[in-house]
Amino acid sequence: MKHTRWVRYRIDGAEASFGTLHDDIVVEHRGQMFGHNEPTGRTALLSQVQLLAPVEPTKVIALWNNFGELRAKLSLAHPEEPLYLLKSPNSWSAHGEPIPLPRGGGKVAFEGELGIVIGKRCSAATESEALSFVFGYTCANDVTVADILFRDASFAQWTRSKGLDGFCPIGPVVATGLDPSTLTVKTVLDGQVRQQYPISDMTFSVAQLVSRISLDMTLLPGDVILCGTSVGVGSMKPGSLVEVEIDGIGRLANRYGFPT
Amino acid sequence: MKHTRWVRYRIDGAEASFGTLHDDIVVEHRGQMFGHNEPTGRTALLSQVQLLAPVEPTKVIALWNNFGELRAKLSLAHPEEPLYLLKSPNSWSAHGEPIPLPRGGGKVAFEGELGIVIGKRCSAATESEALSFVFGYTCANDVTVADILFRDASFAQWTRSKGLDGFCPIGPVVATGLDPSTLTVKTVLDGQVRQQYPISDMTFSVAQLVSRISLDMTLLPGDVILCGTSVGVGSMKPGSLVEVEIDGIGRLANRYGFPT
Repeated sequence: MKHTRWVRYRIDGAEASFGTLHDDIVVEHRGQMFGHNEPTGRTALLSQVQLLAPVEPTKVIALWNNFGELRAKLSLAHPEEPLYLLKSPNSWSAHGEPIPLPRGGGKVAFEGELGIVIGKRCSAATESEALSFVFGYTCANDVTVADILFRDASFAQWTRSKGLDGFCPIGPVVATGLDPSTLTVKTVLDGQVRQQYPISDMTFSVAQLVSRISLDMTLLPGDVILCGTSVGVGSMKPGSLVEVEIDGIGRLANRYGFPT
Repeated sequence: MKHTRWVRYRIDGAEASFGTLHDDIVVEHRGQMFGHNEPTGRTALLSQVQLLAPVEPTKVIALWNNFGELRAKLSLAHPEEPLYLLKSPNSWSAHGEPIPLPRGGGKVAFEGELGIVIGKRCSAATESEALSFVFGYTCANDVTVADILFRDASFAQWTRSKGLDGFCPIGPVVATGLDPSTLTVKTVLDGQVRQQYPISDMTFSVAQLVSRISLDMTLLPGDVILCGTSVGVGSMKPGSLVEVEIDGIGRLANRYGFPT
């Protein structure tokens, strides 16, 4: 598949459009991002559009303990199978949207991650066919209230600590035609590089994740699998700018600390 | 609010309709179940319609450790706050749909539960106003692969063990105008009563659940909160019929053991 960068956007509050991004020019398309589509002939400058989350998932699945370097640092066991949770639909947000302060307070961590975007309905895919269900890749920030996660001794609150409104910025772009094993995820907090890790260090590869998860849950077009994070996670201060950057995809920037 | 029982359904593969249920007669409505609506004048016999899940949630939130009797039996600690996870969108299914066998095998448990159906967008509701965001109540079966849940020592797989395709039958009815504290959840496995527990034993009441969860996550019309289960949970055999029955709401019946 050709290397193309897709965006969803809105101009002056109109209906959402989608199209391809070429430097700072958006080429509007009609049809379906994951199906047949063609340019409408209209273009816009990137600066004129409001970027939306690039896809409308039915679910966002987030991996835990999927990178060797972080596992070694935390002395975790090698997982026998992909370990995952669901991000809440109200957590999905776009490039540029603020990440709200949690109402209950607490330390909030950024986690820069690669997101796999599913393009076709996928159930019980084999590993060798799994990549044919992948449309492309995006950047994600798997935001987490660290203080909530383990404060109940009997029940790790993964869903809640990662599911608050606005706690899953994704985008701004879905890029097709990439070999994910060559990618590097870089997370920059207030101008300082805090994460810079290779996707090749993933325990379960993209094909393995799609195949194994599709044995449990039917994946639908627009669904996103966050591949998990690696070393360098840290907490944000109110006002912090977090940028998740992956060469070949783009840069997802969100500021933390605006109360809802 | 008047006691009314709402259903969603389809006749002969047509578009989904919704309406009120009066004994075995369905009275079709137009408009919105949660907003303005009126009868269309058309009716159908219940036996002529295919019942659908009664709502189309953006999310289904499931409580853990929310009943005193089950907590005592399992010697669990009293939770300081509602403990919850998300059911996967592909798990939601309708009355009468089969619950599939997991591809990986394993013991599969039924959990009869009360579902709270949200009727209005709800964010940071106080406890005293919380019930005004509730549209009604439904029956649910929070199906779980028991064998998956704790087999990884470092990460309880709640999302996965409860998120398989077809693992969250809900319905067939959403009933309005009920006092949930008077309700009893009865679960019948192959004709034998296995659960029969009062909602009044809930640790966090309906108003508390809606208020507390809405501080974390904006609840949207059609979203469902499963209140958690109590004693009597057990596993199903291929071919088992599970019925979750709540007086004033209805009876949700699903058979287990049809491979996908």
